[in-house]
Amino acid sequence: MNISQATFERTSYRGRYQNRPVSREDLMMIMKAGLAAPSGCNKQTTSLIAVDDPALLAEIKALIDPPIFQTAPAAIFVLTQAVPAYRGKCFNVQDYAAAIENMLLAVLELGMESCWYEGHLTDDDHLGQKIAQRLGVPEGYELVCALPVGYPAEPVRRVAKKPFEERAWLNGFGKE
Amino acid sequence: MNISQATFERTSYRGRYQNRPVSREDLMMIMKAGLAAPSGCNKQTTSLIAVDDPALLAEIKALIDPPIFQTAPAAIFVLTQAVPAYRGKCFNVQDYAAAIENMLLAVLELGMESCWYEGHLTDDDHLGQKIAQRLGVPEGYELVCALPVGYPAEPVRRVAKKPFEERAWLNGFGKE
Repeated sequence: MNISQATFERTSYRGRYQNRPVSREDLMMIMKAGLAAPSGCNKQTTSLIAVDDPALLAEIKALIDPPIFQTAPAAIFVLTQAVPAYRGKCFNVQDYAAAIENMLLAVLELGMESCWYEGHLTDDDHLGQKIAQRLGVPEGYELVCALPVGYPAEPVRRVAKKPFEERAWLNGFGKE
Repeated sequence: MNISQATFERTSYRGRYQNRPVSREDLMMIMKAGLAAPSGCNKQTTSLIAVDDPALLAEIKALIDPPIFQTAPAAIFVLTQAVPAYRGKCFNVQDYAAAIENMLLAVLELGMESCWYEGHLTDDDHLGQKIAQRLGVPEGYELVCALPVGYPAEPVRRVAKKPFEERAWLNGFGKE
């Protein structure tokens, strides 16, 4: 699968997953793709925890209300560290977002699906903190995202996007 | 070029570019890959302006001090809109970072190089604002990033990264 094809085919899959495990090799490959993403001033502020232990994953899913990815056989949790990188500014949000996009593309290449769950974990319910606690994440890291990983059991549907002409131009805003 | 290969080969290229134009077709393909990235609640907060007009690009380069990508024959400028997406929170930084990562991978697939320039444009010198003004960008959009696009004239070197084991674990922080 080439890059263009993958970027166009990738979508947020919220359906059920097949009861089929994800290999450790595939989980490692996905995380390696994520950690290969660039980071502001190469601070490498993103860390990852893959969970494929069924009992542990069930415990974590039970913390999430309303529930998400209940049937996923594995998930990757994204941690970030707010490290000042340039003139006192942190770029850790950009860093982890680039890492997540790499992982979403890698998941697709391996024939699987995923979805970027962030707002549900970082809102005022602080579900991310509860998951981090269960995973033994120390002070200084924030758990900001969960990516389910697995083989889809339902058809994959893509969301509609605005026309290209409304979001991209040549040699000036709104041109061509 | 497949996904894993591209994510591992991508690096930040700060060298000189060949005096060889980038085709419009390639610029469009790169921007399409960028706009195919996911966005929080599908708000599609990222917009793009490609600049390949030599006179306009020279004017923009002259605004940037210290200078960057002086020899690049084209550049893509990234605009963002802070649109509340979920429980009043904006995810536009995540949105544009994912779009940028897609574009960096697409550039590589097309045999070219790029580099994510953000901090230099968004710091207290407000160079991004000056570039936005020159490109006719209206209120409500912020210009946050420039991506040069072109064929490299120098060898491409990759930066060292921390060992995988220091940033990725299985079934718990620091495990395996």
